Amino acid sequence: MSLLVTGSIGIDTVTTPHGQAEEVLGGSSVYFAFAATQYTPVRFVGVVGDDFPPEFRDVLASREIDLTGLEVRAGSKTFRWTGKYVGDMGEAETVDVSLNVLAEAAPKVPAAFVDSEVVFLANTHPALQREMLAQVKAPRLTVCDTMNLWIANEREALFETLKVVNGVIINDGEARQLAEQANLVTAGKDVLKLGPDFVVIKKGEHGALLVTADGATAIPAYPTENVKDPTGAGDSFAGGMLGYLASQGKFDTATLRRALLRGTVTASFAIEDFSLRRVRNVTRQEIDERTAELVEMLRID
Amino acid sequence: MSLLVTGSIGIDTVTTPHGQAEEVLGGSSVYFAFAATQYTPVRFVGVVGDDFPPEFRDVLASREIDLTGLEVRAGSKTFRWTGKYVGDMGEAETVDVSLNVLAEAAPKVPAAFVDSEVVFLANTHPALQREMLAQVKAPRLTVCDTMNLWIANEREALFETLKVVNGVIINDGEARQLAEQANLVTAGKDVLKLGPDFVVIKKGEHGALLVTADGATAIPAYPTENVKDPTGAGDSFAGGMLGYLASQGKFDTATLRRALLRGTVTASFAIEDFSLRRVRNVTRQEIDERTAELVEMLRID
Repeated sequence: MSLLVTGSIGIDTVTTPHGQAEEVLGGSSVYFAFAATQYTPVRFVGVVGDDFPPEFRDVLASREIDLTGLEVRAGSKTFRWTGKYVGDMGEAETVDVSLNVLAEAAPKVPAAFVDSEVVFLANTHPALQREMLAQVKAPRLTVCDTMNLWIANEREALFETLKVVNGVIINDGEARQLAEQANLVTAGKDVLKLGPDFVVIKKGEHGALLVTADGATAIPAYPTENVKDPTGAGDSFAGGMLGYLASQGKFDTATLRRALLRGTVTASFAIEDFSLRRVRNVTRQEIDERTAELVEMLRID
Repeated sequence: MSLLVTGSIGIDTVTTPHGQAEEVLGGSSVYFAFAATQYTPVRFVGVVGDDFPPEFRDVLASREIDLTGLEVRAGSKTFRWTGKYVGDMGEAETVDVSLNVLAEAAPKVPAAFVDSEVVFLANTHPALQREMLAQVKAPRLTVCDTMNLWIANEREALFETLKVVNGVIINDGEARQLAEQANLVTAGKDVLKLGPDFVVIKKGEHGALLVTADGATAIPAYPTENVKDPTGAGDSFAGGMLGYLASQGKFDTATLRRALLRGTVTASFAIEDFSLRRVRNVTRQEIDERTAELVEMLRID
C-alpha cells in the first residue's frame, strides 16, 4: 500500500554524553521516512526554507522517498532544533528552537499523493494534522503522533484530530498527560474512547504497549547497551511500524503486534549513532536478524 | 527441592490513593513465602517480638510454611513499617520505621533446615545475609535481594555477599546505583562481574530483565489496570520465581525465563489488593491462567 508521511524537516544540533552532532539533517518525517523505506517507498510532504542545504535533499533522494511534496519556500528559513540529553538520556532538553517555516502556512499534498492509502501525521499542531489529512481522498489507515505542548494547550483541537484517525503513537508521558491517568493500560483505554481503533504507547528502553478493543499487550524493547543519541527514536519506531504495516496491507491485532516489533527494533538501531547515521546505513538484513532475535527472546516453551 | 527463605516479618501500615491497611502482617519473607507456596513448601527463618499477634502466626501456619525457624523473642518488639504511595505508586515513601527486633541478633537456621537446597536471602544487612547463608550446608541455588541503603553505606559488605550467591534480584534503581551505570543491560553485566551467575532486574509495570553470561533478555509485565497497593510486589515476584525454580529443580536460562514469568504474574496479583489479601487468596489455577495469557501475548508468529 502507498504510504504518505507529513511532519517536520529540520536542521538539528544535538549533544549527548557521547558527543555532539552539529547542523545535521533531522525532523520527525525524515527519521520516519528512512525507517519506513526498509519496507516500502515513501511519499514525503513537508516544507523547508531556501536555506535548506542541497546535500540534505540529496540524502533524502538517495532512498525511495518521493519528494514531489517537498516544498522549498523562498524567503523562509528551515526549522531548527538544538537539544541536549544528559544522564540516562531519557528525555531531551530543548536548548533552542526556531520554528521558522513551520510557523507559516502548511505545505500542500500534491495531486499525485491524494490517493495515499496509509498516512502518518507526524507531530505538529493538531489542526494542521487534520488539514493535511483532509487533502487525502480515502485513506485506509491514518495514524498520528502528538506532543506535550498540544496536549496541554490545544486539547480541543487534538480531540478533533483523534476522532478522525485510526491510530495514535505516543510516548508514556504523553499518554498519561492526555488521559490524565497514571496507569498506562487505563490511559490507553481512555484514549481509545476519544476515537482511535488502536493506541501505541512507546516506553523507550521498556518497549511498547498496544491497546485495542481486544485489550492491552506489551512487548519489551530489544535490550541494547549501545545508546549514543536517542534523537528520532520515536519517529524511527513509527516509520518501522507503519512501513511494515503498509507492506503487509492489513491491520489486524496480530499484524499490529508484529509491526510493533519492527518499530522497536528500528528504534534500537536509530539510537546507536548520532543523527540519521544508523537509520541510514542499517540494512534490511540487520533489521530482520534483530527482529528474529527478539522473537526468539520472547519464545516461552 | 527444599526452599528456605529468611528476611523481615513486620507489622505494616500502608496508605495508597485507593485506601489504607492498618497494622497488617507484612515483611519481605512473608510475601515471599505466600507466593512461593504456590509451587513448593517453604522453610521459614525469621524473628519477631513477643508482641507478634498469634493470629498472624496462624495466617502463616495456614499454608505449607514450616515455622520451625520462626523465633519469638521475649522482651523484644516486632519490626514495624508505615509507608505511603502517591501518584503512580512507583516508589514507597517511608513515613515511619521501627527496626525493633531486626536491630538485634539474627535468628538461627534450625538444624532441620541446614540441608536446604534453594535459599533466598530477602533484603537485610549484607553481612547478616552471609551469616545466615553460612549456616546452610550445601545449597544448590542461593539468591539475594538488597536495597539502596546497603548499596550506599555497606558497599564492601554487599560485594562480599555478591561473591557467594548464584543470583541477585533487584529493582532498576538499585541496579543503576549498584553498578553506577544508567544503562540497565550494562548495569546487569557489571553486577555479574561481582560474582553472581544471573541478575534479575525488576522494572515494576515494565516487566523484568534477566542478565546471564548468555546475554540479556527482557519480559514485559502482565498489563494490569487494577493496582491498589504495590507493597510486597518485589518479594512476591521473588517468591513466585524461586518457588517455581525449586519446583523445577533446574536453573538453566530457559527455566530462569519461565521463572521470571511466574514472578511477574505473581506480582501482578499481589498489587491488586491491600497487604497480603490477594497473594493469600489467589489460586494456582488463576496464576497458571494468567501465565498462559502472558505467554500467548508474547507469541509472535
